Formats: sequence, C-alpha cells, structure tokens
Amino acid sequence: VSRSFASDNNSGVHPDIMAAIAAENTADVQSYGEDALSLQMQDYFRNEFGPQVRAYAVLTGTAANTLGLRSVMRTWNSVICSECAHINGAECAAPEIHGRFKIIPIPHTDGKITVETIDRYNLYHGDIHHPQPRVIQITQCTEFGTVYTPEEIRTICDYAHSKGMLVHMDGSRIANAAASLNCSFKELTTDTGVDLLSFGGTKNGLLIGEAVVLLNPELAPGPEFQLIRKQAMQLISKMRFIAAQYKSYLDGKLWRSNAAQANSTAALLAKKAAQLNGVEITRPVQTNVVFAKLPEKALLPLQEKYFFHIWDEATHEIRLMTAFNTTEADIEEFISDLSQYTEN
Amino acid sequence: VSRSFASDNNSGVHPDIMAAIAAENTADVQSYGEDALSLQMQDYFRNEFGPQVRAYAVLTGTAANTLGLRSVMRTWNSVICSECAHINGAECAAPEIHGRFKIIPIPHTDGKITVETIDRYNLYHGDIHHPQPRVIQITQCTEFGTVYTPEEIRTICDYAHSKGMLVHMDGSRIANAAASLNCSFKELTTDTGVDLLSFGGTKNGLLIGEAVVLLNPELAPGPEFQLIRKQAMQLISKMRFIAAQYKSYLDGKLWRSNAAQANSTAALLAKKAAQLNGVEITRPVQTNVVFAKLPEKALLPLQEKYFFHIWDEATHEIRLMTAFNTTEADIEEFISDLSQYTEN
Amino acid sequence: VSRSFASDNNSGVHPDIMAAIAAENTADVQSYGEDALSLQMQDYFRNEFGPQVRAYAVLTGTAANTLGLRSVMRTWNSVICSECAHINGAECAAPEIHGRFKIIPIPHTDGKITVETIDRYNLYHGDIHHPQPRVIQITQCTEFGTVYTPEEIRTICDYAHSKGMLVHMDGSRIANAAASLNCSFKELTTDTGVDLLSFGGTKNGLLIGEAVVLLNPELAPGPEFQLIRKQAMQLISKMRFIAAQYKSYLDGKLWRSNAAQANSTAALLAKKAAQLNGVEITRPVQTNVVFAKLPEKALLPLQEKYFFHIWDEATHEIRLMTAFNTTEADIEEFISDLSQYTEN
Amino acid sequence: VSRSFASDNNSGVHPDIMAAIAAENTADVQSYGEDALSLQMQDYFRNEFGPQVRAYAVLTGTAANTLGLRSVMRTWNSVICSECAHINGAECAAPEIHGRFKIIPIPHTDGKITVETIDRYNLYHGDIHHPQPRVIQITQCTEFGTVYTPEEIRTICDYAHSKGMLVHMDGSRIANAAASLNCSFKELTTDTGVDLLSFGGTKNGLLIGEAVVLLNPELAPGPEFQLIRKQAMQLISKMRFIAAQYKSYLDGKLWRSNAAQANSTAALLAKKAAQLNGVEITRPVQTNVVFAKLPEKALLPLQEKYFFHIWDEATHEIRLMTAFNTTEADIEEFISDLSQYTEN
Repeated sequence: VSRSFASDNNSGVHPDIMAAIAAENTADVQSYGEDALSLQMQDYFRNEFGPQVRAYAVLTGTAANTLGLRSVMRTWNSVICSECAHINGAECAAPEIHGRFKIIPIPHTDGKITVETIDRYNLYHGDIHHPQPRVIQITQCTEFGTVYTPEEIRTICDYAHSKGMLVHMDGSRIANAAASLNCSFKELTTDTGVDLLSFGGTKNGLLIGEAVVLLNPELAPGPEFQLIRKQAMQLISKMRFIAAQYKSYLDGKLWRSNAAQANSTAALLAKKAAQLNGVEITRPVQTNVVFAKLPEKALLPLQEKYFFHIWDEATHEIRLMTAFNTTEADIEEFISDLSQYTEN
Repeated sequence: VSRSFASDNNSGVHPDIMAAIAAENTADVQSYGEDALSLQMQDYFRNEFGPQVRAYAVLTGTAANTLGLRSVMRTWNSVICSECAHINGAECAAPEIHGRFKIIPIPHTDGKITVETIDRYNLYHGDIHHPQPRVIQITQCTEFGTVYTPEEIRTICDYAHSKGMLVHMDGSRIANAAASLNCSFKELTTDTGVDLLSFGGTKNGLLIGEAVVLLNPELAPGPEFQLIRKQAMQLISKMRFIAAQYKSYLDGKLWRSNAAQANSTAALLAKKAAQLNGVEITRPVQTNVVFAKLPEKALLPLQEKYFFHIWDEATHEIRLMTAFNTTEADIEEFISDLSQYTEN
Repeated sequence: VSRSFASDNNSGVHPDIMAAIAAENTADVQSYGEDALSLQMQDYFRNEFGPQVRAYAVLTGTAANTLGLRSVMRTWNSVICSECAHINGAECAAPEIHGRFKIIPIPHTDGKITVETIDRYNLYHGDIHHPQPRVIQITQCTEFGTVYTPEEIRTICDYAHSKGMLVHMDGSRIANAAASLNCSFKELTTDTGVDLLSFGGTKNGLLIGEAVVLLNPELAPGPEFQLIRKQAMQLISKMRFIAAQYKSYLDGKLWRSNAAQANSTAALLAKKAAQLNGVEITRPVQTNVVFAKLPEKALLPLQEKYFFHIWDEATHEIRLMTAFNTTEADIEEFISDLSQYTEN
Repeated sequence: VSRSFASDNNSGVHPDIMAAIAAENTADVQSYGEDALSLQMQDYFRNEFGPQVRAYAVLTGTAANTLGLRSVMRTWNSVICSECAHINGAECAAPEIHGRFKIIPIPHTDGKITVETIDRYNLYHGDIHHPQPRVIQITQCTEFGTVYTPEEIRTICDYAHSKGMLVHMDGSRIANAAASLNCSFKELTTDTGVDLLSFGGTKNGLLIGEAVVLLNPELAPGPEFQLIRKQAMQLISKMRFIAAQYKSYLDGKLWRSNAAQANSTAALLAKKAAQLNGVEITRPVQTNVVFAKLPEKALLPLQEKYFFHIWDEATHEIRLMTAFNTTEADIEEFISDLSQYTEN
C-alpha cells in the first residue's frame, strides 16, 4: 500500500498519541469531562495560547467551526468569510442549520481575504431587513495551503474590532501554519487579537477531537459553551481519552514536529516536481499542500497507485497533500513515478 | 481507587476493544467512512439484526436518539415516550433543538410504558393546530433498569403500526437487556417490529460510538441519513477506529459477556444488600442497576469511598450501577463497607 | 345564522376597529413600521402599561408567545407552564421549532399553576445535561377562563425573580381578565412584576394583530426584538393598518367595554343554564367561557344550530364561549333552545 | 403630501380591496381558514393558474418565500438564486433560520440568471459533504424590474427538471411582470413548468397577504403545508379577511389594471426623464421601477419632497418606483421638479 496524497485525514494516528490513549485506560473515573485529565487539558491549552483561554474538546472540525461561531452569534448575525471557506463549502450547511447564522462568502486570493474586500461586503449594520455582520472568519492555513502572517491577521482583527465585530480563525491546520511561520500558537492568535479559534488536531496525528478555543475572555460566560456542546451532541462520556491526546500533542510539542514533517515533505515534493518538464506548480506552497498541473497522460497511471484529488479536470491540475507520516522516501517514489510521464 | 457505582460510563474501555483500535493504526486509508473496515461494520450489524438493516455510527447516545428520531420525523411530528426517557430528561433538549420535533412525555411504571397509557396521549391526528404523533419510543432496558419482554415490545409495535406510527428503541443498554432476557438483538428488535434503534456500546466497554440502526428498510432512503449525520457534526475523518471496535464487540460477541458480567454483579449486589437490616431494594433488579434505600448514616461514609447517585434525598434512596468491569470482589467489598452501617 | 359559541375567534371585527383601519387608507407613508402611526402605537401601550414598556405588533397569538419567549431564552433554556398551556398544546410545536426552547409542562387546577407545583419541576439549574429553566409562564385568563388575582401573580413573580428567572404572561384574553378583576392592565402586569406579555386583541374585536410587550426594560436591548420579528416573517409592509386598531382599542378603551360584554353574557349564560334541571356548570365562570354538562339528548340538536366544542364526550361536557358581539338576546335564545331538552 | 417613489409598499390599499374586507364583517364564521370564503379562495387561484394548484395564504412575502421553499427542501438541500435575490439579501436570513436550507448565490445581469451560470454552481450532487442543490429560484419581475419571457422561464425549468430539481418563482411583483408581458399568470408559471410560486399582492394594492402557490400537484401532499404554515406562526384566526381581498383582486381582475397603471407611469417617468439633460436611465425599464443617474445637485431638493432610495452614492444613481396609485400627474410633477436641476 502506497502513501495517500489525497488528504492528511487519510493518515492514521501518531504512535505517541495512540499510546497516550491506551495509557489512560485504568481506573474508573468521572464521566462527561469531569475527570482530572479533562480538567488538566485546559492547562495544556493555556500554556500554548495564554492563561486567559478556555478550550472545549468537540468531536469534528465541522463541530468546532459551527459551535464556536454559534457561541458568539445570534440567529440574526452573519459571518463574512472567503468563498472557499470550509464552513461555506464542505460542512453540508451545518453552520446554517445547526449553527443558525448566515454566511456571507466573499472573493479571495489563494484562500486569503483582505480588509479591502471584507469592507465591500460588511454592510447593513442597523438595518433590520438584513442579518447583522458579527464575525470575520479566516482559515489558517487556508484551504489552498497559504498562510496569513501575524501582521496580516492583526490588520484584520483591528478592522473587525473597530466595527464592533469579532475574528474567528478556522485552525483546522493551524499547526502547519505555525510551523511554516516558525512562530507559536499564541503569536498567531492571542497576540494578534483573534477572538476565538477552531483548533484542529486530527489532520496532524490525533485520533479524534478538535477544540473550540475561546481566546477573548469575555466570550460565552459561565457554562454557556458547555451547554451548547452538550446540546449539540458533542459531549462523549469518556472524555478522558480525548484529553489524553493533548498531553503528548501539546505538552510534548508533538504538534510542531508532526507539522514540520508534513510541510517539509510538501516543500520537497514541490521542488522536485517543478524540475520536471511539463509540470507546473500553480499556487504558493507554504504548508503541506501542493497544487500542480501535470501532463494529461500522467493522471490515470498515478491514480492507480496513489489517492489524490483532481482539482481541475480541464487543466489537469491536481492537489497533493502530505501528512505527519509522509517521508522523504514517499516523495522520491512519487517523483520517480511521475517522471515516467514527463519529457526529459 | 475503588470501583465507581455511579454509572457504567465511569468504566474505561474493555482491553479487547482498545487492542482492536490500536490494531487498525497501520496504512493510509480513505477517510470519512469510505475505508474497507467501515464498510465491513455493516456486516457485523447485519449478522446481529438481520440482512435488511443499515447501521450508522454516530458519536454520542444523544446523537443516536436525536438523529435517528429526526430521520423519521418532520418538524410537525411528535414522539410519545415516558416522562423519564433520556430524550426528555437528560439530553439538554437536543431532540427539540437539533432534532426538531416535539416530545410528549407520558406516565410510566419503573420506566415502562403501556399501550393503554400511550393511547390516552396519542391525540390530534389530522388537527393542524397540534403536532402529529409519529413515533412511540421505548427504552430497553429502561432508565430504571427494567426490561420489556419481546411480547411487550410486539404489542407496542402492533399498536403503533395500526396507527400508521413507528417504534423507536433507545437501546443505550440494549446489551444488558438482551443478556437479561437471554435472547438475541434480532429477537428484541427486528422480530418484534421495532422500526429503528439507538444502539449503545459505550456503557458496555467501547471507547466511543453509538449507532443508529435502521431496521425498517423503508426508512431514510439513499444517502439521507448520511447527509443528516454529516450535517449534524457526527462524521469524523478517521471512522475506521470507530468501526474497529465492532469486530470484537459484535463479531466476537464481547457485548454479551460484558453485559452478563454487569448484570450478574448487580444481581449479587441486590441479593447481598437485601439481606442487610435497614436496606430495602426499591425497584425490580433486572439488569445492571440497583435502587436501594439505605440507613441515613451510611450515606456519607460510603460516598467518601465510592461514586454513586443519591436518587431521593428524603428517603435515602440511592442508585448503584455496575459495569462490565465490576467484579464479585468489588461487590463483596461494597457490601462489607455497607454492613458497618446497618444493624445486625 | 346564529351566534357561534365555539370561540371568540369566530366573531368578526368590531365596527369601530374596521372604521379605524379604513380611516388610515390615505396618503403614501413609509413601510415596515416606520410610519408615524406605528410609532404612535407605542404611546397607546405606554399609557396602559407604564412608560417603560416597548410593544411590538406581531401577526398571530402563536407568534406573540413563541417570539416573546424566544427573545428571553437561549436554546438551552426551558419554560415551565401548565400542561394545558396554549404553547404546549395548541401551537403545533412552534415554540420548540421556531422558538427553540424546551417546554416543561406541569399540573394545574382549572388552568392555574402554583409556586408549590412549579418548585417541584424547577430543577437542574447548573447541570449541563438538562435545559436550564428560565421562564415561568402563566395564562391570564387561563385556557379554562379562570383568572389569577394580582396577589397570586405577584407571588409567582417573586418566586421567579428569587431564582433568577422571568415571568411571561400569555395574555391572549388579558382584556377579559382585567374586566373580570376590574383592574387596569398595569395592575396585572407591571405592578405585579411580570417581565413580558403576549397581548391579545383578535379574540376581543381586532382584525389581526397581537403584540409582544416587554415590560421589564432590561429585556431585548436595542433592535433585537425587531430583528427577531423580521426574521420570523412577522413584519408586514403596511404596518399602519395594524397600528390603526390600537387607537380605538386602547386609547378609546374599547378593550374594556368589549371584554365586559363578553364576560357579562357568559355570566348570564352560566346563571341561566344552572337553573335548568340536568345542567351542571363544571368550572368556575370568571370570564367569557362556560363549561357545562348537558343532558346527552341536548347535544345533537344544539349542534345543528350552534357551533361549540364537546369538551368530554364521555360526560357530555361542552365549552361555550361568548365574545364582544354576544348579546343578551343570544343568551336568551340559546337557553330557550337548551331548555327544550331539560326536564322541568 | 406628495407621492412616494421609494417603494410600491408605501402605497395604501386599493379602495375596492378595502371595501371587500369591510363587506365580510358580518356573521360569526369558523376561524383559521375553515370558513366558506377561505375555501372559495382556492377557486380564484385555480381560475388563474390551472385546476391543479393549491394556494395557501401567508402573511408576508418573506413567509411566502421561506415556507414555500421549505416545503420542498430538507435541511441538507440548497437553492440556487441570484446574488440580488430577495431571499439572499433582504429577508434577514429567514430562509436559513426558519426555512432551514442553504442559499447558493450566483451572478446575474440586471437581476436575471441563466442556465449557463446556474450550471457552474450546480455542484456536488451525491457528495454528502455538501448540501444537495434542490431548487432553482428566479424572481419575476426581478429585483431590478426586468422580466423573464415565458421562453426563458421554460429553458430554466427544463434544465432544472433534467437534473431532478424544481423551480421556484418569487412572484412578489408577478402582476407587474404579467402586465408587462401581456400574458396570464398561467402562461408564466404552469405552462412553463414552474413548480411553485410566491404570489405577491401587497405591493399591488392588497392590505396584507401573499400566497404560496403549489403548481406542481406532487408537492407537499395532504395537510403538510398547512402544518408548516401553522407552525410557522402564519395562520391567523380571521382568515376570511385575507381571502376577501382575492375576490376583487383575482376574480375581478384588479391585479391587471393596478399593475398596468404602475408599469405605464414608470414608462412615462423613464421616457420623460431621459429627455432631460444630465439624466441617464441606467437599466432596462420593463415594469414599475426606474433606475436613473441624476445631476448631483438634484438629489437633496428632490429628497425633501419625495421618498426614494439612493442606489449608488458615488454615481448619483437613484431608484424610483411607481405603484397602482401613481398618476400621470404625479409623474408630471416629479419631472417638473427634477427639470429645475437639469441644464436645458
């Protein structure tokens, strides 16, 4: 079986994470997140993001986005995000149906949005016939693998706050962004003014579990988010096994080494592929995803051996994604296979 | 650390289940339930319930109830259930809010409802000012640990079908019921006419994951339930690790030995406790839960050593629950501790 | 055509109200409630309820209850009300589905609930597995025509506020209650501590339009309720014609004379009917509804001539409701017809 | 008081309609739409649209769109419509929140969309990560006053049906379109394949009330739409006064004369304005709305005398809307006022 380049979701669980889960399978403990380890999980997040944060484990990335946003919006609010945002495109309308808010999709460049574009769509404040814009959402890294610099994030946050709005970050792959920018989670979020975050881990070696991280201490006072989470069918009884993962992932800094491995193999893949005749890298490669146009004849043979997505049938553009378990040997093998279909 | 008698949720994961999960952590596979093992999971359920069933893993018991019911109801429908039903009392209104249907709670005896009572509340068919009753829900075993016999279930199903209604079974502890009645899952469900089921596993040794089991083949045609599940934030990327559990749990029949262990230790507990002066068993003990009135002076010292719930402060009635990992030695120790506070 | 005794909804529009509507059909004015008359409507309500209130016209009684309650509850909150409350029984689950909150129905006596009963169901504050009780709802007058005295209302409000909760009054027939108690709207609501109100008018001579009246000035700040109303499909473009009705109804005190007429004809009906052999008045007659058991043989002939509801087929109990347009002659005629089927 | 050119909603009620309402204020009748006149309303619609249709009065245009669409979609469905569609822009997210479906906004030309553009966004059928496109919605006449010809509508319907989808028409101003095209309602809808319609009347002389018209007889079987309507807080008790309007409006063909008057005064306005120096008509004038750029100095003085909307501050483009009660004298007066600020 060869490596999948379809998605970092195709990888399994990092061995350290699996060991951490198994290690907690000992005594009877309280259920539904009242055990000692689940409480300890808060500290791991506070060490990364700052002492003011509250982190709540949920079960899917769709839940993290939908419920985090829901916790700061009423049904008459809207969120402004890129047209390619995961909440707009790939969550089967969970935000609208279970989150109950409107999405205002706006144009982007390689996944990134700017204050100039946001401002053209940030309309109708005070007009009861229109949903009231409440949140600006950015994805870090974006759905196209590009990253916002801390300065770019701060510019968006300053704009949002000047309008009485909040900033939500979809950090499904925040580890890849932080590794790419060589900065801490705190530098990307708390320090730039981001108000709340979907913190992803499954794409970077966890078994299950994303987290809603409330960075702004004024959000969702008291048990409000816990009620939202329970009601939204996201509170499992044996929460200790979710929490167990973060000991290794956050406290042990596994997140950074995993993300760095995915990023560096993507960089290697892009570099090697670009050297082949007839192969064109079509977007900036900043994290663990590579968009490339291949010779048409390469597609079918490669698909027989590897999983990956055809991004644009017309131009033979494909998306290749690496993960924490991608090795340099995997890249060499893929390049070798690809080179059979390029002219030298 | 002593055994918890608060809930079967306090136990960890059965070692066979944990091993089954770890064993799947090998190659890259397709995500979101399209891997071979997730497809194989269907067969395990079909072996137990009949070839017509479709089973869908979800992440919590609240999700299983809410989404299963949702899949057969429109927003103008209602479900008739006991006042003590989990969907009415302990799911933070997820059924109403995320399932979007009305609950009609009715009186019960030790958790069980009868056609006679159901019929008094089964009103307003055809009257647009009232929600239209669509489903009768029973819990097997009930919230008080009692069981419906197959004949009792068939009577309710026949009544429901004669009214154009469906029967949903909350089988959060269906394994305990089947072990108690010494029958198969199929005899309790498909054979009695139950239309759909929440199949629970977490309370009986799984790490995570309940299932919506559509027994009636006419329900939720095509990908309808998959869309409901994805939209309801219940589809994790690494579904293979959910599916892995069922190989041991269903195919290996772990469900029955686990449930039998919980039931027999509860029976032992009830029998021993009833022999103590001043202790009264207050409800039928048919599965893994024992309700008992204790001498008042016993409560505080026992609570220092054991987790359990005070059911009624006024009468000193407590609820004691056993699990797959409760041993006879645990019972002996508890009885020994309790006997220090009873008169002999 | 004879008078209907089925419901005060069967009556038409009081002629003064119809004239008031027609009188506004002159110049072009701003739409969606921004015209001068719609703004003036506030003053009519403030004169009745106190200077702090805000009143918002909505289009049905179901909307008034559902949206008023929604404006003070989040999806994890519940409202405690009588089992016979209109929100529980006769609004086709609009509260759960469009209001998005849970209803906790409790026992009552002739429609009235007491603090003692409320307290037995007012549970689980702080427990995230259960909806958090937020509002106590009473209906004035009740679904059985009985009234709460101001002292009884104050007792419930004091209890609610001591628990951090609010009181909502379903005032679908509040005019009948105020006429019966010979008091003002303010004495029934603002002065007793009621926080918000569904103010009904259609059952007492209006064409269309109920109102959500926020008595507690801290509720739904800014345009919040206006956004709820617009989003809930309750804002018509020509609001001036809704507002027009209140000039006559509130400012001209039509509400009191209409309600007094309905109440007094009901009292007359009850008094005369009680004098007939074989007729039993079964509940207190305090407003415009009379429950009575008739001789079985009277039912069919009376139903051929009059609309009314059989309340209990087994006991031949019927419900007779008067309205603003019921006359003493209507009562005399009905009694005369009824007396043909009673023994003298 | 001068004529408003801000919206056809600013006009009052046509005198014939007001008289029809007052004429029904006679005897007691059954409430909630069970009276003879409400049943008669169906015939008026069937005469216009064909014998197969079912029409349901609702209370606002937002309700007509939201509930009509809701009746043919499940929560995992989406509707494709123009970016400027009323459901996307001006209904405060009622479609998403109370209708519970996703909106896919697409580019348009002067309000009209084409199959070519629709097809580019009509994606992801069968992919559970995405809402499933179910309806194509067009507005007739559009938000910019343009009209689709019957042939254009048929092309869209044929496309939709070939994909297993439905077509919904937002006919808030369908009378203006039918008058402009000199055709019947049936020729625009039933004959072209439209499946369901929001039928508007308030903008063309009614007091209150739009209608959901199910043209395709397979939609919303039985009482389904009545349950949706009641639950959505749209069923008033005195429905006879809603129904009364249609006797004059449909049976008496008032709809056509009213719409023709609005259209012809708009045409006159456009023709006269175009003759003034410095005035530019910016969009096709096909019904009752005129978009025009004025000299900047004209704006303030005209706004002191007339209501109208500035469409684009930068280019001094305004929107002028006529109504059934706009007269040629109103146009002459406006043109005369405008001409004072143009160069001759």
